[in-house]
Amino acid sequence: MLVVMDAHATPEQIERVCAEIREMGYTPNPMPGPTRTAIGVTGNEGAIVETSRIVLLPGVREVIRVTAPYKLVSREFREADTRIQIDDLIIGGSEIVVMAGPCTIESREQLLAAAQAVKAAGATVIRGGAYKPRTSPYSFQGMGEEGLRLLAEAREITGLPVVTEVMDTETLPLVMEYADIIQIGARNMQNFALLKKVGKTRRPVLLKRGFTATIKDLLLAAEYIVAEGNGAVILCERGIRTFDDHSRFTLDLSAVPVLKSLTHLPIIVDPSHATGHWERVLPMARAAIAAGADGLIVEVHPNPVVAVCDGQQSLLPDRFAEMMDHITRIAQAIGRSVAGRPASTGVLQEPALKSQ
Amino acid sequence: MLVVMDAHATPEQIERVCAEIREMGYTPNPMPGPTRTAIGVTGNEGAIVETSRIVLLPGVREVIRVTAPYKLVSREFREADTRIQIDDLIIGGSEIVVMAGPCTIESREQLLAAAQAVKAAGATVIRGGAYKPRTSPYSFQGMGEEGLRLLAEAREITGLPVVTEVMDTETLPLVMEYADIIQIGARNMQNFALLKKVGKTRRPVLLKRGFTATIKDLLLAAEYIVAEGNGAVILCERGIRTFDDHSRFTLDLSAVPVLKSLTHLPIIVDPSHATGHWERVLPMARAAIAAGADGLIVEVHPNPVVAVCDGQQSLLPDRFAEMMDHITRIAQAIGRSVAGRPASTGVLQEPALKSQ
Amino acid sequence: MLVVMDAHATPEQIERVCAEIREMGYTPNPMPGPTRTAIGVTGNEGAIVETSRIVLLPGVREVIRVTAPYKLVSREFREADTRIQIDDLIIGGSEIVVMAGPCTIESREQLLAAAQAVKAAGATVIRGGAYKPRTSPYSFQGMGEEGLRLLAEAREITGLPVVTEVMDTETLPLVMEYADIIQIGARNMQNFALLKKVGKTRRPVLLKRGFTATIKDLLLAAEYIVAEGNGAVILCERGIRTFDDHSRFTLDLSAVPVLKSLTHLPIIVDPSHATGHWERVLPMARAAIAAGADGLIVEVHPNPVVAVCDGQQSLLPDRFAEMMDHITRIAQAIGRSVAGRPASTGVLQEPALKSQ
Amino acid sequence: MLVVMDAHATPEQIERVCAEIREMGYTPNPMPGPTRTAIGVTGNEGAIVETSRIVLLPGVREVIRVTAPYKLVSREFREADTRIQIDDLIIGGSEIVVMAGPCTIESREQLLAAAQAVKAAGATVIRGGAYKPRTSPYSFQGMGEEGLRLLAEAREITGLPVVTEVMDTETLPLVMEYADIIQIGARNMQNFALLKKVGKTRRPVLLKRGFTATIKDLLLAAEYIVAEGNGAVILCERGIRTFDDHSRFTLDLSAVPVLKSLTHLPIIVDPSHATGHWERVLPMARAAIAAGADGLIVEVHPNPVVAVCDGQQSLLPDRFAEMMDHITRIAQAIGRSVAGRPASTGVLQEPALKSQ
Repeated sequence: MLVVMDAHATPEQIERVCAEIREMGYTPNPMPGPTRTAIGVTGNEGAIVETSRIVLLPGVREVIRVTAPYKLVSREFREADTRIQIDDLIIGGSEIVVMAGPCTIESREQLLAAAQAVKAAGATVIRGGAYKPRTSPYSFQGMGEEGLRLLAEAREITGLPVVTEVMDTETLPLVMEYADIIQIGARNMQNFALLKKVGKTRRPVLLKRGFTATIKDLLLAAEYIVAEGNGAVILCERGIRTFDDHSRFTLDLSAVPVLKSLTHLPIIVDPSHATGHWERVLPMARAAIAAGADGLIVEVHPNPVVAVCDGQQSLLPDRFAEMMDHITRIAQAIGRSVAGRPASTGVLQEPALKSQ
Repeated sequence: MLVVMDAHATPEQIERVCAEIREMGYTPNPMPGPTRTAIGVTGNEGAIVETSRIVLLPGVREVIRVTAPYKLVSREFREADTRIQIDDLIIGGSEIVVMAGPCTIESREQLLAAAQAVKAAGATVIRGGAYKPRTSPYSFQGMGEEGLRLLAEAREITGLPVVTEVMDTETLPLVMEYADIIQIGARNMQNFALLKKVGKTRRPVLLKRGFTATIKDLLLAAEYIVAEGNGAVILCERGIRTFDDHSRFTLDLSAVPVLKSLTHLPIIVDPSHATGHWERVLPMARAAIAAGADGLIVEVHPNPVVAVCDGQQSLLPDRFAEMMDHITRIAQAIGRSVAGRPASTGVLQEPALKSQ
Repeated sequence: MLVVMDAHATPEQIERVCAEIREMGYTPNPMPGPTRTAIGVTGNEGAIVETSRIVLLPGVREVIRVTAPYKLVSREFREADTRIQIDDLIIGGSEIVVMAGPCTIESREQLLAAAQAVKAAGATVIRGGAYKPRTSPYSFQGMGEEGLRLLAEAREITGLPVVTEVMDTETLPLVMEYADIIQIGARNMQNFALLKKVGKTRRPVLLKRGFTATIKDLLLAAEYIVAEGNGAVILCERGIRTFDDHSRFTLDLSAVPVLKSLTHLPIIVDPSHATGHWERVLPMARAAIAAGADGLIVEVHPNPVVAVCDGQQSLLPDRFAEMMDHITRIAQAIGRSVAGRPASTGVLQEPALKSQ
Repeated sequence: MLVVMDAHATPEQIERVCAEIREMGYTPNPMPGPTRTAIGVTGNEGAIVETSRIVLLPGVREVIRVTAPYKLVSREFREADTRIQIDDLIIGGSEIVVMAGPCTIESREQLLAAAQAVKAAGATVIRGGAYKPRTSPYSFQGMGEEGLRLLAEAREITGLPVVTEVMDTETLPLVMEYADIIQIGARNMQNFALLKKVGKTRRPVLLKRGFTATIKDLLLAAEYIVAEGNGAVILCERGIRTFDDHSRFTLDLSAVPVLKSLTHLPIIVDPSHATGHWERVLPMARAAIAAGADGLIVEVHPNPVVAVCDGQQSLLPDRFAEMMDHITRIAQAIGRSVAGRPASTGVLQEPALKSQ
């Protein structure tokens, strides 16, 4: 921590700040300069110092924090990548994992058709929403427990683990009965009560970055879960809110290498919600893998035109299979592979633009 | 709703879109133009049409929604301002209401000192956090129920109603036992489970705008509450996240006149969290009232230097009294008054800069 | 400057950084901590140190700058407010200055009607654009020199100084023949060639904040002008670009107190371009004055319906007069006054909503 | 264009709007609905209608534009990709073009070392700045004409075309004597005087997206150039300004597929300025190619530690060669190739993290 004094701070003011730092149990290191004095603080052992005591003292201009406020999730705490195992599947290893399925579970037919199609194309986790956070109270809110039961059936039929969103602490026990991976959505990334509850379980968690969350916010949200004892957290970049209006959100792919350097947790990318349009899912899925992501979560619908929600961003099964071909080749190009996919061969065909 | 076709859309594609619209029960109004055709959709009676069915049809470029997706909270639904009464106090009337107190309840002494000081200066609601949403799991998380009990004591002593934050559905019943106004924080603005639960009560709700929420998002969050039957919602602008880094958040004061034109609900402003620094609270509190806000929620601490949280943005009681003087004069200048304050007289003194 | 080392940095790496700092002519102050070492740099006398030499050394995690990179415009360099005098008018004193007129000069009739109307209501500077920066090449680009001549005529008739925009270095000499204040628009805030040229003149400059500029960027742009010898710079907040879409731009009023603390230059606000809608000009003009701005620049058009540009945000003369009444009262409420306006008396009437 | 009326608009108000539309020479198409009437406007032949006349009429709620305001640069105007030829090189074809070199030309040794190294690794255009837009007036502003002469020497030695930035209209003739491609920087993207002047030349232009520019703004800036007769415009995504603070800018890669669908102009990506850190250049360069970009512009410095500017984001020649290997493989994976590079073979080695 560094305390920057005003240019006109008096020696008494500087001494008072040093005294306060000492009283807090730390060591002040004053560095007088020609225009102003700065005071380094050492001995805080990485603790999060409440800075109000200092910043409000007379003559103080600013307090700059140096230590990152997250610990357990940091690369410094644990250098090796975290690998999360679910049956035979490993998330966070050299193999790229693709989770796919419909945004919202609408019916048995829809879910099973999607699940079988994505499995055939190489997805290794089935996704599907039973409880849906909807901006409007008048939009379809999900099938609830009935959706969860269908998800269990999809798991049985395909043999693949399933991921689904939990929206609040009350339904968590129910969701736990069905989900192999519990998803926390972007709007709930700072629902701290929910983070703590999920942290007390030992179920893998897919934590989506809030669309206004900084990288630090995301890592602190993960820290909430890990601090409760659950280290199986998968981070997910899904687009941030910016002035730009050409997509629903701005997919922040440079977050991938940044997160890779700051944390040992696996990072996946959701190109469907970020772009909001199926035509952009293929290029952004490729780009995510090229940027170093450990996986993808993608929306696939057997008949997007009749989807009750987000049909515009869902891939048809054929388009999804094409996407899998592309990312398999991208993965190979950077020395990785896609879980459950043979090494790619043959000629690649560029998709025709428009009209799925 | 307006469907914009591609420049090269064929007559068959246009007819297919029209057929789809008819099948959905609405009326298509094709408008052929020299470069492209647009199709107006009427007869939807304001329903939220799921647009996937149309936007994915061949030849469709874009679907533009015209109708606002919120209803009950809109000015068109109800022209007269909503006034929320709590004992003698009316929020949303011509009188401006100031809520004040510490960010976090830390002790009996602290809360009661703050409560008495803000009452003396003219605040008409006491604020204080018992459950605190903190970005880091290692920060103080609030006193919990003990804090709520202290808040009740502050109410008894001052005779003023109290507002406090509820963080999740599980603690809502407990918070309901103590709070006159239930606050939903910015991070929970889209915690839909919580919104619905609070909507089933008949207690006034202070709904803070999420720091990445558009005006439409905020109004839809309010719609969640009102749609459950609780019309007593107070909106609160508290700063949005932007590229700008000179303040913690960018206080979006132009949201005040915009909200005033779109909704009948009262709007207050939180200058403390937005600016993050006590020196900017006074000018932004004045600006909020000048922009037309119905009230303020402000952090006051008897001794900010020892605050466990957000001390930097808390006003000393004397500074708060000065702020009340200023806003009383601003209110008069625009033909309003401040609840519980006599009309201002006498000479106004500008505050010295820095050092509370 | 503070150099933060990696947690695992070796003593040799730390020593190498210290050696590099010494070689640059500064003094390293190593502060060993339990998890990492930080090295304070002193002796740089406020110089802008190119940090590449250090940040790329092995074992360095981050370099944090402490000293603000602007000097001449800073409050620390010069404590007293800069006052800019144009004839009898002083900008940056206790009196608030209002500049008003049409966005674009369209005709002699239009400009003179607007000029006389705004003078009658108390404006003390006439604004009007002869060269217009337009996002589209197909929009009206301004009357050019003919517009400047009309502006000179408006000055002669009203006796008020005029402000107009210069768009490039080539037309600067021509604009200098007519303008009392030279405006640099938001899109040109980092047109460094233009800043330098304007800095070589001794004409007052109205420098608009770029809509993506941080406060630091704005102050450095002003520093470009002042460093060339022209200290008469008026800063102008006119809205920043954010995710929010309810207004054209988000008016960042908290920039006003922040700028007041960082710089001695006067600060005015443009509520017309920021909000993009005349109905919001009145509340935001009031809020700007309440926040501490030294003036306003406002668009007024005798007949906005036929304006070639930005008619939607222009006030009718009657509405402008009403705005002047309001801000005169707000100014009084905070102990200031409006240049050229008698102290306000009488009853204030709230404007009816909508329909100018 | 669609005019949306207020819910309570009277038949007279609707008729007046229709009359106004007719008077402007267009055709009104009223669509009465249960809550409000909307009026479609046809017959405008794609002209940019100034909407003030209509939006300010009584009873009008909103005017929604449907037609894109750019024409010549749009995919609808010209379906085939624009290919820009410079000697043997084609930009915008199936081959990916890489431009590389130092941010700033510092000396003959530095530039020639960089030029030869990037040529050896497969770059086909040399970049180097002689005039540098710097946020601070105290930063190095470039070598000026001396730098241009060195650039010409680098061209002669390598046989590769050169790209360099022009900062203002006055130095354009000088830059034209040396540059094969004229770069317009992000801060000048809306310097309309410069755009028009460059549009009057027939030299290829590299137009960088302003860091606050929407896609529409960027395409309109390109339209300024093309409308003057110069169709050889290369668009460049280089990061936008967002709340996110982990990188200097947020690289908006989804702009690539969006631009590809809206315009026929080639699109390249600058991963150096966007990320601001050399370690992130490799993953983001790969991601850009995977997203469909037609090329890259990358900073390479023979000795970044002594760079006068942006050393932190410059690649060492060895790292650049590694990047070329990676993107060659990515290009192959999506059925493209890199200009001047043989098809890749052999084993790919992942770079060690940190320490160039």
